Amino acid sequence: MFESKLASAAVLKKILDAIKDLLTEAQWECTETGMSLQAMDSSHVALVSLKLRSEGFEEYRCDRNLNMGINLVNMSKIMKCASNDDTVTLRAQEDGDTISFVFESPNQERQSEFEIKLMDLDIEHLGIPDTEYSCIVQMPSSEFSRICRDLSQLGDSMCITCTKSGIGFSSKGDLGSGMIRLSQSTSHEKEENHVVIDLYDPCNVTFAIKYLNIFAKASPLSGRVKISVSNDVPIVVEYQIEDIGFLRFYLAPKIDEDDVKKEKMDD
Amino acid sequence: MFESKLASAAVLKKILDAIKDLLTEAQWECTETGMSLQAMDSSHVALVSLKLRSEGFEEYRCDRNLNMGINLVNMSKIMKCASNDDTVTLRAQEDGDTISFVFESPNQERQSEFEIKLMDLDIEHLGIPDTEYSCIVQMPSSEFSRICRDLSQLGDSMCITCTKSGIGFSSKGDLGSGMIRLSQSTSHEKEENHVVIDLYDPCNVTFAIKYLNIFAKASPLSGRVKISVSNDVPIVVEYQIEDIGFLRFYLAPKIDEDDVKKEKMDD
Amino acid sequence: MFESKLASAAVLKKILDAIKDLLTEAQWECTETGMSLQAMDSSHVALVSLKLRSEGFEEYRCDRNLNMGINLVNMSKIMKCASNDDTVTLRAQEDGDTISFVFESPNQERQSEFEIKLMDLDIEHLGIPDTEYSCIVQMPSSEFSRICRDLSQLGDSMCITCTKSGIGFSSKGDLGSGMIRLSQSTSHEKEENHVVIDLYDPCNVTFAIKYLNIFAKASPLSGRVKISVSNDVPIVVEYQIEDIGFLRFYLAPKIDEDDVKKEKMDD
Repeated sequence: MFESKLASAAVLKKILDAIKDLLTEAQWECTETGMSLQAMDSSHVALVSLKLRSEGFEEYRCDRNLNMGINLVNMSKIMKCASNDDTVTLRAQEDGDTISFVFESPNQERQSEFEIKLMDLDIEHLGIPDTEYSCIVQMPSSEFSRICRDLSQLGDSMCITCTKSGIGFSSKGDLGSGMIRLSQSTSHEKEENHVVIDLYDPCNVTFAIKYLNIFAKASPLSGRVKISVSNDVPIVVEYQIEDIGFLRFYLAPKIDEDDVKKEKMDD
Repeated sequence: MFESKLASAAVLKKILDAIKDLLTEAQWECTETGMSLQAMDSSHVALVSLKLRSEGFEEYRCDRNLNMGINLVNMSKIMKCASNDDTVTLRAQEDGDTISFVFESPNQERQSEFEIKLMDLDIEHLGIPDTEYSCIVQMPSSEFSRICRDLSQLGDSMCITCTKSGIGFSSKGDLGSGMIRLSQSTSHEKEENHVVIDLYDPCNVTFAIKYLNIFAKASPLSGRVKISVSNDVPIVVEYQIEDIGFLRFYLAPKIDEDDVKKEKMDD
Repeated sequence: MFESKLASAAVLKKILDAIKDLLTEAQWECTETGMSLQAMDSSHVALVSLKLRSEGFEEYRCDRNLNMGINLVNMSKIMKCASNDDTVTLRAQEDGDTISFVFESPNQERQSEFEIKLMDLDIEHLGIPDTEYSCIVQMPSSEFSRICRDLSQLGDSMCITCTKSGIGFSSKGDLGSGMIRLSQSTSHEKEENHVVIDLYDPCNVTFAIKYLNIFAKASPLSGRVKISVSNDVPIVVEYQIEDIGFLRFYLAPKIDEDDVKKEKMDD
């Protein structure tokens, strides 16, 4: 028997909204320590890693390890049937082929129960190597979201440049070019608006904006986002999920086509 | 001469919004006691019944009974040209072939007048038999609207089950199944949020969600909705219109195809 | 060197929103006294005239007269990357082929710079004759916007009729006919809601609503609009842009097709 109860359906709704455009289906791994999910997107470019610790649940029971293959598009539809302040209970039998979602209103007068079929997914578990990053930036998630949206008007790629003077995001295309620069916050603004830059080595890496824009859909999960960058390794975009866990996105850098083209033309 | 003046255009705008997706045209019957409208939708599955009592109007004059065939899509467009706090006057001559809508702003400095052609409609008036229902439920109209929307994600049919323990709405389809249960309010919440269930006999009936979803568009008319259910007879979904009248929708039950299929498969 | 700095990007964003549906590209003329733009729409029916005086800028430097051909759709996309409270600096070299947009956040911690290519446009400068109008009406811009939107449901043409008793806007079509009448404000309402009518001669002119609807997109620029009308000459629809300048739209009257048809039928 697996049964876990979250105090607020809002968290799970936001998680599904954040990942359902990358993953149409995924395997939820349930163990004594919590629920986790790790999967490559269908184009095998981005990796999603989610962890919800058992302590973060209002109730949590997992008698035996359980892997549940779930269609996330359907799960997202079901979760939309919950009010934000409903509690949500997930329930599955070890030998069953369904998962139940029970939503209860705070006053107990409304209860709804949805059931969807589980799927057999053929999953290979990917190890994520521990990496020390050249630059770690923490900023408001709305700021990151806006940068991705703005630069996606100009081109398909975004170059992230970290130097002592700050972090720069740039793109170019037929329309023109753009560069957005953030510097370490020194003002006496509210801390949640601060930009905090930990720079160990300057770096300069290019990514497909399309994916960063999808990652940014996780913004409702947290007011802050943490971005870890190094040359030639995947970027990590991380959102804390209250005190329950985290949602991390990994994206491999792009070979800078413009540079390649330029070199060719310079031949 | 027919002339009626409503204190607020908002009411008539909401009525049109509520019925124009079911009825593209309808006959308004004007008598000394008020205006009424009764019509089947184009697929002859749902019935709309509207009554606006003469006492609810600011001014009301109807020298002779008058039937006005009106294109409701066009009437809805005209009504959108009124501000919510405008007064609206409807005016028609017994022997004319047009109806006028006059909107006046509260400060009198803006007046607009629209005129549309009347239509000759070939209408048979349907008698609605008085029925005693097994279960009458009163609930917030937003709750009913949400139930219809949520369950429409799962299937085409909604089963309504009334028992001593409360009222249940359920649906199932390829995606999975869902059941929403409401129990009689006992909490000390605001009365407008109460669910009040008057049960005389348990019942269990199935309806096409598509139509219930259209009925639910009348929610802006009233914070509350009254639902009357019995086995094998049409459901009634009723919205009070302030102290002027009511808007009622009738929908015949569906033969439960799943049951039929199941029986066939059990053969 | 040309460099001008606006205290708030919001103004330039609203200007672009207001004209980009009429003009896909236009020439900005920069002189010591300010920036201006004047162009016919692509169908050569409407004329846009914009003036931003140098005194209205926070900083303004124009060493030599400069004409900058700019793709306004792209410029509008770039401007959307500015926050409303960012400052915006436009910068171009006399002999360059690009223009830069620099946006700075109030706390200076965010700076972004966008660059787009200039275009060679073959422009003939049109003189606009000074005209004395028969009727000048000042009204809330939202009211004008609403009148255009409402009447566009009825027909393609709007007839504006100015008489001693007020100003009337009317339209008719297959659906029916409509007339909206405004009278000079006498009430003790807020001045920004007043309708002020200066009538020298009665007049009656017809315009294509489609264009008036596009002009009305400038409403966010100003709470008030000034409309100047005479028989047989273009209407002027003018929005003040804070204390920086103005945006004016000119539209030639339509030959009233209904009258023409009617005359033909009367033959």
